[in-house]
Amino acid sequence: MAALTLALDAMGGDHGPSVVIGALKQALNSVSDTHFIVVGDETELTELLTKANLLDHPRITLKHASQTVTMTDKPGYSLRAKPDSSMRVALELVADGSADACVSAGNTGALMTKAYFTLKTLPGVLRPALMSAIPQARGGSAFILDLGANPVCDSDTLFQFGIMGSVAAQQVLNIDRPRVALLNMGSEEIKGNDVVKTAAQLLQQSPQVNYIGFIEGDDLFAGKADVIVCDGFVGNIALKSCEGLAELLLDNIRTNIHAHWLTRWFVKLFYRRLQKSWDWLKPDHYNGASLIGLRGVVIKSHGDANERAFLSAIEQALEETQQHLPSRIRDRVEDVLLEQE
Amino acid sequence: MAALTLALDAMGGDHGPSVVIGALKQALNSVSDTHFIVVGDETELTELLTKANLLDHPRITLKHASQTVTMTDKPGYSLRAKPDSSMRVALELVADGSADACVSAGNTGALMTKAYFTLKTLPGVLRPALMSAIPQARGGSAFILDLGANPVCDSDTLFQFGIMGSVAAQQVLNIDRPRVALLNMGSEEIKGNDVVKTAAQLLQQSPQVNYIGFIEGDDLFAGKADVIVCDGFVGNIALKSCEGLAELLLDNIRTNIHAHWLTRWFVKLFYRRLQKSWDWLKPDHYNGASLIGLRGVVIKSHGDANERAFLSAIEQALEETQQHLPSRIRDRVEDVLLEQE
Repeated sequence: MAALTLALDAMGGDHGPSVVIGALKQALNSVSDTHFIVVGDETELTELLTKANLLDHPRITLKHASQTVTMTDKPGYSLRAKPDSSMRVALELVADGSADACVSAGNTGALMTKAYFTLKTLPGVLRPALMSAIPQARGGSAFILDLGANPVCDSDTLFQFGIMGSVAAQQVLNIDRPRVALLNMGSEEIKGNDVVKTAAQLLQQSPQVNYIGFIEGDDLFAGKADVIVCDGFVGNIALKSCEGLAELLLDNIRTNIHAHWLTRWFVKLFYRRLQKSWDWLKPDHYNGASLIGLRGVVIKSHGDANERAFLSAIEQALEETQQHLPSRIRDRVEDVLLEQE
Repeated sequence: MAALTLALDAMGGDHGPSVVIGALKQALNSVSDTHFIVVGDETELTELLTKANLLDHPRITLKHASQTVTMTDKPGYSLRAKPDSSMRVALELVADGSADACVSAGNTGALMTKAYFTLKTLPGVLRPALMSAIPQARGGSAFILDLGANPVCDSDTLFQFGIMGSVAAQQVLNIDRPRVALLNMGSEEIKGNDVVKTAAQLLQQSPQVNYIGFIEGDDLFAGKADVIVCDGFVGNIALKSCEGLAELLLDNIRTNIHAHWLTRWFVKLFYRRLQKSWDWLKPDHYNGASLIGLRGVVIKSHGDANERAFLSAIEQALEETQQHLPSRIRDRVEDVLLEQE
């Protein structure tokens, strides 16, 4: 039997199951010792697996699910009306111990709601958070959380995000004492709202975290922190704004290149270099985002993910599982709660 | 006598009064019919004006102020301890009618606090807002507010920002029925927190504003809205994150260019094109940000502004003054309040 088992929601994402099966084929080559449970419409998946010569592969199990969560389904609706969706079934495989982790490229809101409902939070954890790695100027990555699981957070929740992010940076990014910062509208202590100010005090007082203070938006990619904490509203808008701007900026640069025959001539060579910069700046697309604080590993792949991007999400799920991220977070949160008693 | 009078805080900004005097010299050529009151240390300014051959210029008045607000002064401290700062004196010239508008490149927090204290908000206006133009994909600009004057906003305040931004887009951007959107973490009605949801209802119900719904961060530059409304915490972090990312992205592109002798050869030609894209994406630097909702025009120039950027801030102050932005906002807010009665 394989050491790890991964449940793949094959029906999520903008491009449907063919991307998931394509990524799975690559994963079977690159990843050893892992079993995959592919969840979704049996007829459609059988056809795709047959085409890919994977139908009776010893490391693949096909698990039928009669429903599919669409990208426009509202979270509450999908929870009530789609109990047999591929997403829900994949999450339940993690909940009942049949799988170690789950990857889905489906509707983010639905995934968060279903994951919260199905897997529950770890003991002591107030709220799960959506966390992603973002590139840093001097190389390497930093984790940023929350990216949209919680539109409103209190100080205790932000404090816990600091703890959880710190554990994740240690385990996944291999950083010894991760520098944890709060995202704020100014770096001075008096700046911001009461929630971040109180969260700053909590982080400052805790020996469990290497808190370095506030950072501003323009330091998001500056390599000043390893873990950047904010509420889901701010995190979502900050990261999506960056995506919007990068797209516009590259469009603009392309236009400027095309405006001159000499630069146009170089466009092919240059375009790949640009593309490299751009891919690097779409961590959600490239790496997948983790839903942490739950009793299991759940990775949200970008809905627009191609095979390579979905493969990255699979690799991320394996990494977090091998590093026992949920139980490490549980232990640390327990330590913090014991200290506070 | 000149038609308009502008008060310039000559001591603000990272580069001190020489940038302001340099910009003033350019403004005297490009702008007719305007008188300038230069506020700051008399000795230092006399020396600089003498060097620039501007000492007895008929359109310049020198106004001494014994104190200077530093970039690190806390707003409350600067308000209490520096009543004779160049920033405060420049604002008071607007308050007492000696000047039509004021431009400062000084400490943003101090400027907002002093402006609020000295000029007060317009009748019916709950809170002033910091507003800036940002470039849009298909050309043109959109206004975004608030960018940091209010770390926490209630729904009524966001609603008023929509009204004020709408008036500004009509008067300054010459857009007939500006499309007003709320920045949210999702475009569906159920997304976000209670404050934006209630603000959405208020905007939807008002005939005074062309409300088009929520937009997400990645649409900030997409040309979907003419006025983008959010609280100061979110706006500040969104725009600064974009600045941070753009800087990193261009750094990265430059590195990729430099890595190959063929592209390196083109770097001089290309650098200027890149620089063009980049300048265009730093609206705060390029245009200055407006503090609106007050009984007078106040423009915050970027602290790092060079002469050309400071000149843009001067031009923006003149534009808003000529368009009678404060009284237009007052009238519209009055209309809205009458409707709500």
